[in-house]
Amino acid sequence: MNKLRLGMIGGGQGAFIGAVHRLAAALDGQYELVAGAFSSNPDTSRTTGHLLGLAPDRVYGSYEDLITQEQARPAAERVQVISIVTPNHLHLAPAKLALESGFDVVLDKPMTFSLAEAKELAAVVAATGRRLCLTHTYTGYPMVKEARQLVAQGTLGRIRKVYVEYPQGWLSKFEEGGENKQAAWRTDPTKSGVAGAMGDIGTHAFNLLEYVSGLRVEQLCADINTVVEGRRLDDDGAVLLRLSDGASGVLVATQVAAGEENNVRIRIYGEKGGLDWMQADANTLLVKWLDRPTEIWRTGGPSVGSYARHNTRTPAGHPEGYLEAFANLYRNFALTLQAELAGQPAPPEALDYPSIEDGVRGMAFIENVIASGHSDQKWTEFTV
Amino acid sequence: MNKLRLGMIGGGQGAFIGAVHRLAAALDGQYELVAGAFSSNPDTSRTTGHLLGLAPDRVYGSYEDLITQEQARPAAERVQVISIVTPNHLHLAPAKLALESGFDVVLDKPMTFSLAEAKELAAVVAATGRRLCLTHTYTGYPMVKEARQLVAQGTLGRIRKVYVEYPQGWLSKFEEGGENKQAAWRTDPTKSGVAGAMGDIGTHAFNLLEYVSGLRVEQLCADINTVVEGRRLDDDGAVLLRLSDGASGVLVATQVAAGEENNVRIRIYGEKGGLDWMQADANTLLVKWLDRPTEIWRTGGPSVGSYARHNTRTPAGHPEGYLEAFANLYRNFALTLQAELAGQPAPPEALDYPSIEDGVRGMAFIENVIASGHSDQKWTEFTV
Amino acid sequence: MNKLRLGMIGGGQGAFIGAVHRLAAALDGQYELVAGAFSSNPDTSRTTGHLLGLAPDRVYGSYEDLITQEQARPAAERVQVISIVTPNHLHLAPAKLALESGFDVVLDKPMTFSLAEAKELAAVVAATGRRLCLTHTYTGYPMVKEARQLVAQGTLGRIRKVYVEYPQGWLSKFEEGGENKQAAWRTDPTKSGVAGAMGDIGTHAFNLLEYVSGLRVEQLCADINTVVEGRRLDDDGAVLLRLSDGASGVLVATQVAAGEENNVRIRIYGEKGGLDWMQADANTLLVKWLDRPTEIWRTGGPSVGSYARHNTRTPAGHPEGYLEAFANLYRNFALTLQAELAGQPAPPEALDYPSIEDGVRGMAFIENVIASGHSDQKWTEFTV
Amino acid sequence: MNKLRLGMIGGGQGAFIGAVHRLAAALDGQYELVAGAFSSNPDTSRTTGHLLGLAPDRVYGSYEDLITQEQARPAAERVQVISIVTPNHLHLAPAKLALESGFDVVLDKPMTFSLAEAKELAAVVAATGRRLCLTHTYTGYPMVKEARQLVAQGTLGRIRKVYVEYPQGWLSKFEEGGENKQAAWRTDPTKSGVAGAMGDIGTHAFNLLEYVSGLRVEQLCADINTVVEGRRLDDDGAVLLRLSDGASGVLVATQVAAGEENNVRIRIYGEKGGLDWMQADANTLLVKWLDRPTEIWRTGGPSVGSYARHNTRTPAGHPEGYLEAFANLYRNFALTLQAELAGQPAPPEALDYPSIEDGVRGMAFIENVIASGHSDQKWTEFTV
Repeated sequence: MNKLRLGMIGGGQGAFIGAVHRLAAALDGQYELVAGAFSSNPDTSRTTGHLLGLAPDRVYGSYEDLITQEQARPAAERVQVISIVTPNHLHLAPAKLALESGFDVVLDKPMTFSLAEAKELAAVVAATGRRLCLTHTYTGYPMVKEARQLVAQGTLGRIRKVYVEYPQGWLSKFEEGGENKQAAWRTDPTKSGVAGAMGDIGTHAFNLLEYVSGLRVEQLCADINTVVEGRRLDDDGAVLLRLSDGASGVLVATQVAAGEENNVRIRIYGEKGGLDWMQADANTLLVKWLDRPTEIWRTGGPSVGSYARHNTRTPAGHPEGYLEAFANLYRNFALTLQAELAGQPAPPEALDYPSIEDGVRGMAFIENVIASGHSDQKWTEFTV
Repeated sequence: MNKLRLGMIGGGQGAFIGAVHRLAAALDGQYELVAGAFSSNPDTSRTTGHLLGLAPDRVYGSYEDLITQEQARPAAERVQVISIVTPNHLHLAPAKLALESGFDVVLDKPMTFSLAEAKELAAVVAATGRRLCLTHTYTGYPMVKEARQLVAQGTLGRIRKVYVEYPQGWLSKFEEGGENKQAAWRTDPTKSGVAGAMGDIGTHAFNLLEYVSGLRVEQLCADINTVVEGRRLDDDGAVLLRLSDGASGVLVATQVAAGEENNVRIRIYGEKGGLDWMQADANTLLVKWLDRPTEIWRTGGPSVGSYARHNTRTPAGHPEGYLEAFANLYRNFALTLQAELAGQPAPPEALDYPSIEDGVRGMAFIENVIASGHSDQKWTEFTV
Repeated sequence: MNKLRLGMIGGGQGAFIGAVHRLAAALDGQYELVAGAFSSNPDTSRTTGHLLGLAPDRVYGSYEDLITQEQARPAAERVQVISIVTPNHLHLAPAKLALESGFDVVLDKPMTFSLAEAKELAAVVAATGRRLCLTHTYTGYPMVKEARQLVAQGTLGRIRKVYVEYPQGWLSKFEEGGENKQAAWRTDPTKSGVAGAMGDIGTHAFNLLEYVSGLRVEQLCADINTVVEGRRLDDDGAVLLRLSDGASGVLVATQVAAGEENNVRIRIYGEKGGLDWMQADANTLLVKWLDRPTEIWRTGGPSVGSYARHNTRTPAGHPEGYLEAFANLYRNFALTLQAELAGQPAPPEALDYPSIEDGVRGMAFIENVIASGHSDQKWTEFTV
Repeated sequence: MNKLRLGMIGGGQGAFIGAVHRLAAALDGQYELVAGAFSSNPDTSRTTGHLLGLAPDRVYGSYEDLITQEQARPAAERVQVISIVTPNHLHLAPAKLALESGFDVVLDKPMTFSLAEAKELAAVVAATGRRLCLTHTYTGYPMVKEARQLVAQGTLGRIRKVYVEYPQGWLSKFEEGGENKQAAWRTDPTKSGVAGAMGDIGTHAFNLLEYVSGLRVEQLCADINTVVEGRRLDDDGAVLLRLSDGASGVLVATQVAAGEENNVRIRIYGEKGGLDWMQADANTLLVKWLDRPTEIWRTGGPSVGSYARHNTRTPAGHPEGYLEAFANLYRNFALTLQAELAGQPAPPEALDYPSIEDGVRGMAFIENVIASGHSDQKWTEFTV
C-alpha cells in the first residue's frame, strides 16, 4: 500500500501544533510528508523544510504556491492531503482553496475564525465532495471511543448528566507580551476570533461531550471571564447545559487554574451507571454501576469493543498517549481515503474521525457561549 | 478532666446520622452519653437507650421531657450538651428549648427547615449566650483545615476560581416509596424543606467552599433538576457562583450520579497556585504551583500547620477518616466548652468548628439556590 | 448492654500506641476505661490518669498493684479487660499475671520478647481459659477481611503468589540518641528483642500474609540489614518465602525507605485472579481477573461479604481509617466477651480477631527470619 | 536532514514487537524503512513488505539475502541501519553479519541466546566499530531518565535500597500449546534460552535497576519458579540483590500475576529521599523527601532536567507512552549516527541509549539468576 503524500501549511519552527501533526502523521507510516508552506516567512519555511528533509522545490513561501504548484505536478507525485495548522484566522482561505483544488484536508481546531466562515467551508466541502478531518484529538483516544460505544449501546440507560472539564494553568499570568508565540496569538482577537479559552479548549470539551454522549447541546448559560488583567479574550468559563433527550450538564474550561496541566475529563451518568475518563490516566475508563463494583476498563484490555481495539496499537499495559490519539485521527482519515482510492467502502471504525459537522457545531458553540456570557438572560438557545 | 455529659435527641435504631454522632462523640473520650430521647416512639427510644447502656430513667419519650427533666437534675449530674439529630423540620424547636434551658447544642445540618427558622435560632443563640456547633463534617478533616490555612496565609495569592462538587448516586432510582427511611424523609418537602439534594449535600459543598476559600458567595445562577420521576424535591443541581473579591466558582451537587459514593471535592486556584482535596483521598492535599512540581501534603506529614496538626491523632500514614473528621467537630466543641468551664480562653484551633453563622448562611444558600433554579434571570443576589 | 470495664498497663503521656488503644476502645462505646498503671513513674501515671478523668484511687504505680488491687474490688466494679501497651520486654509478666488473675487481655504486638516467652504465654492462656487479643491492626480493615474471605471462598482459585510489603522511612537517620522515645526502645535489643524492623513491622506483614492467604510460611530466605550506622538492630529486610500448598511469596519490611509513611500493602494472585490492598487507600480492594476488567471493591459498597460489612460503620464513601480498623479488634473482642458473659456463642465475625496463635507464629517469624538473615544456607525451615 | 535508511529482519505479520519497532522508528521521521526480510517464509515476508509499501526488490526471503544484496547497492541507496526483531535464538547470526557488513544495528532484547553469544557479539562490535542499540524500552521514558539524573546528581544521597518489579499475568494459563505465537517461542528453551520470565521481563527489570541507580548487581539470591504445569521455562521469580556501594535490593518478575498488565515499577531510596516510577503512570515521577512533602515531577513539567526534556515531544499534560519511550531509543540512536555521519560529536543525551554493554550484563543476569535459582547456596556472585 502506498503512503499518502502529505503537504503542510503552517507549522514552521517554534510552532507547537505543526510538530504534533507531523508526529501523528508519521507514526503509522500512512503518510509521507513531501511538501510544505511552513511559514509566511520564506526563510522560516525553507529552513523548516530542510530540517524535515523535503526536496527544496517542494518547500513553498505561501499556501497559494503550495496548492497551485502541487496541483500542477503529475497526479502520481503531487500531494493528496493537505494539513493546515495555522492560527484560526488563517484556516478558511487555504482550506477552501485546497478543497476546491481537489485536495483532502486535515484542519486544526477550532475550525475557522467565525461561525459564518465555518458554514462557508461546509458549503465548499459539500460542493467539492472532498473530505475534511478536524483534529479534535481527544476523540482519538481508545477509551473515549469505548465510552461513546458504551453509551450508544445503552449500557448506562438513558443519559441524565454529563460533566466535562478542561482545566489548564498556562495562562495564569500575562504571557502574551513577550516571546510566547502560543500565548500571543491565542489571546489575540484578530487571530483567534471572539473567544480565547472557550475557542482553544472549550471547543475540545464541547466536542468531547457531544461525541461521547451522542446528545446535543440545546441551551446554555455561561459565565465567561477574563481573569488576567490586560488580556483581550476570555481565559476562563463555566457553562450550564441543557442537552437533548432531557439530560443536563456542566462544561468548565479555564486557562488560569494555576498548576494544572491539561487534564481534560468527562463524566457521564445514566439510569444504570456512569463513566469517568480523564486524559491524565488516558488508558483507563472507569465504568460505574448502581449495584456492583466499579470496573477499570483499559486500553487493550478485556471487554473493550471494536472501536477501541481498532484505535489501539499495543497490548494492554503499554500506555498509549496523546500522540497516539492524535495519530488515530490521521490513521482513520488515511484508511478512509485509501478505501476511497481503492473503490471500497471504508469500515465504520475508519469513518469515525471529527468532520466538518463537528467543526460547524464547534464554531456555533463559540459564538453561543460568548453571547451567553454577555447576556443577562439565563438560557441561550444553541443556534447554528 | 471530667467528661462532658451528653444527651441526644433523635438517633433511634435505624437512623444513620445518630449513630455517627455517637461514634464521633465517643472517640476522644470527652463526652459521656448519659441521656436520650431517641425517638418519638417511646418503645424505640427505650430500646435504643438500653442498647447504649443508659440508665432507664434517663431515656425519655420526647425532647421536652429530656430537656425539662434533665434541667431538674442536680448541676453535677445533668447533661451539659445536647445533640440534635432529627430530620430538618424537627431542629428548631428542640434546639431553641435546649439553648433557652441553658444547654449547649450540637445540631446536624442543614440547620433548620427554613431561613426564617435559622434567623430565629440565631437570635436565640445570641440572647442566651449558649454555644451551638453545626456538624458540617468535611471542615473537620485535617487537610481541609490545612487548605483553609494556606489560603488564609496568602500562599496561593489572590483566589480566582473555586470548584466544589458533591456527587452521589444513591437516589438514582425512586427509593422513597419503601423501607429506605433516609430516602423517605430527605425527599419529603414537609420534612426536608424546600430543597432535596441542595439541602442535604449542596449545603455541605457551599459550607466547604466558604470555609476553605474565606470568600463569600455574592451571586448565583442555578440549574436545579428533579431527575427521577415522581420525586418531590430536587435531586440534582449545578450552580455558577460569583464570589467576593472578584473570584468566581462552580458548585455541583447531585444524588443521581449512578455509581458515585460520596466524593465531595474542592479545588481552588489563586494567582500563584492551587489546591485539590477530595474525601476519597482525605489525607492528601495536592498543592499545585505555577512553576514547580505539585506537592502531596499529608495528614500528619511535614509542612502542615497548627490547625491540621491539632485535628490529627496519629502519625502520618495512618489514614484518618470520616469519623475522625466528625469527631474533630465534637472534640473542638468540647475543648471550647471545657475552656469556658475552666474560665480560660479557648485556643483558636478549638474555636474552629461550624457555628450558628455557618448555619444561617447555609439556609440562605438553600433558599437562594432554589429561587435561582426557578428564575429566568441569570444572576440572583445571595441574600440572607 | 453494660460497657466492659477496661484497665490499661503502659500508655503514659508521650507514648504513641497507648493513646491509639484508648481511641480504639472508646470509639464504639463498648469499653469504659476505669483504671490504669500508665507508667513505672508514679507521677506520670497519676498525671495521665487525671487527664483521662479516672478516679485517683484507680490509677496505680505498677502493673502488679493494678492487677491485685482491681482483683480485690467487688466483681461488679473491677476491671474486666486489661490492655497492655508497654514495650515488648514488658509484655509477658503483666499479661501472665493478668490472665492468671482472671482478666482477659488485649496485648500489643509483637506478642513477647522472644518465642520462648510466647510459648509460655500460650500455655497460660490454655491453662486459664482466659482470652487474649493481639493488636495486629491491619487485619481489622474491612477490605482486608473481604480479601481473606474471597481467598477462602476460592474466588481466585489456588493461590500461587503473595507479595507483602511494609515500607517506612522514619528511621532513615540515627534517631535513637535523643528525644525520640519510639526510636529509642524500638532499636534497643534489651527492649525489642532480637529484631528491629522485622519485629516492629515485619510481624505485621507476616501476620497479614498468613491471615489473608490462609497459607502458612514453611521456608524462608532472608536478607536482613542494618542500614543506619550505629543502629543495634535491623532496620531493613527482604524475605523470599515458600508457602504451604505450593505457593511462594516475598515479604519486604524496611524503616529506611526515606519519604515513605506507613504504606503496608498485600497482593495475592491465584489461578483465576488477584487482589491488591494497601493501607494508603484502605477502603479499596482491587479485584483482578484473568479475562475481565479489574473491579474496585469498596468498604460499604456492593458485593462485599458479611465479615467486611460487620466491620464497617458507615455507608460507602465515608472513609474508615486506621483507628476504625484498630477499633474493630477491640469491638470484636468485646462482642466475644459479651457473648461469653451472656452465655451465648459469639458469631464467627466477632471471633475473627488476632489471637495467641497469631502471636506465637509472629514470634516464630521473628526468630526464624533473623536466623535466616545470619545464615549462609538458602532456605531456613519455619519452625515454631 | 536525510532520513536514515532502515532494514528490518523479522517482524512479519502476526509478530508483536516488529510492529512496535516500525512505529517507533517512524514517529520522529528519522528513519525510512526501505528493506526487510520479515520472515523465513518468503510469502509472509513478501506480503508484509507489500503492506508496508516497500519496493518488491527490497523484500528478501532471508537475512543473508538482505544483508548481502543491500551491501551490493550503491552507498546512497542501501540501508544504513538494520533492526533485528527475531526470537532470541536468531539474534546473534544476523547481528554479527550485519555489523561485519558495515551496518549499524538495532537489536531487540534479551540480546542473545546465551552469555557466550553476547560476549561474541560484543567482540564483533568492538572489532567492527559499528554501533548497536538494544531496545530496553523502559529506559526511554523521560521520567526514568529524570530518575537516573536525580540519582547521579546525588539528590537522594547515597543509595541504600532499590526495589524493581515487573508483574504480568498473561502466562497464567498454559498458553503455549496453540495459536499464541508469543507464548510459544517465549516459553521454548530452544528459542528463548535458559530463561523464560527472567529473560523476557526480568532482564528489563535488571536493566532498569542498573540504569536508574547507577549501581551494579554484585550478588544475588533467586527463587525461580515454573508455576504453570507443563511449562518448560520459569514463569516467575524473585531475587534478593546485593548491589555495589553497599546498597541492596529486590527484583520481582512474574508472568502469572493474574490480572496484571505490564506494570514495571522502580523505587529507589537514599539517605535523603526516594523515587517511585511505574509504567502505568509513566509521566509521573514521585520524588520523596525525608522532611518535606512528596513532589510529583511530570514529563514536560517544571524542574526536570536536560535528559528528560530531550526525550519529550509535547508540553506537560499530554501523556507520552510506550511508543514514545521506544521511539526515544530509535531517535537517540539516529541522532548519534547522524552526528557521526556529520563528523560531529553526539550530545550526551543522544548517546544515552542501551548498548552492547547493557546487553552483555543482561545475558549475565539471566545466567546468574537461573544458576542461583538452582543453587542451595544463598548468595551467588554476579559474574560476567
